[in-house]
Amino acid sequence: MRRFCQRAWLKEDKVEDYRRLHAAVWPEVLEAIRESHIRNYSISLFGTLAVAYFEYDGDDYEADMRRMDANPAMLRWWKYSKPCFKGHDEGVYYEDMEEVFYFD
Amino acid sequence: MRRFCQRAWLKEDKVEDYRRLHAAVWPEVLEAIRESHIRNYSISLFGTLAVAYFEYDGDDYEADMRRMDANPAMLRWWKYSKPCFKGHDEGVYYEDMEEVFYFD
Repeated sequence: MRRFCQRAWLKEDKVEDYRRLHAAVWPEVLEAIRESHIRNYSISLFGTLAVAYFEYDGDDYEADMRRMDANPAMLRWWKYSKPCFKGHDEGVYYEDMEEVFYFD
Repeated sequence: MRRFCQRAWLKEDKVEDYRRLHAAVWPEVLEAIRESHIRNYSISLFGTLAVAYFEYDGDDYEADMRRMDANPAMLRWWKYSKPCFKGHDEGVYYEDMEEVFYFD
């Protein structure tokens, strides 16, 4: 199992759109997430800061991400969600953070 | 079970101290965390941004946090870790983020 913590910045005037979108994520998007072996997935906000935390329990993360990137439902979803990000014009969205501590 | 995602800002010249401290957390601090019913606890960095994710599976979070705040090991630990935070002079450390999406 691998843990991921990622951060991104939203556009100030798109925070509400992002919140609203994620309050009712399409079932086919949830299905794509599930098929990608992602679990315990949360997204949290503080102002324009967005943090995603999830756990990956498949055995080929890169291949699963590539398959998700090609999923038609995800491509439709991203048409709505990606423009919410400050880095949209540069194609910068969630970026991996560095885990410096873990305890269970 | 409650999930927490929190964010804080570190002082630029203290990021390395913070990383080093958390690479070798004292056993009595880990014990205090465990006694506080915190599990699956990770801290991640991106530049001066610090994000803590953890799960609480006790039944009185506020009481557990108060007890941890009074733990002598934690008080000693915080003498080292708290000065790493940008908000140290104002007593501002990790602050709760707002969860806007969850899927498992």
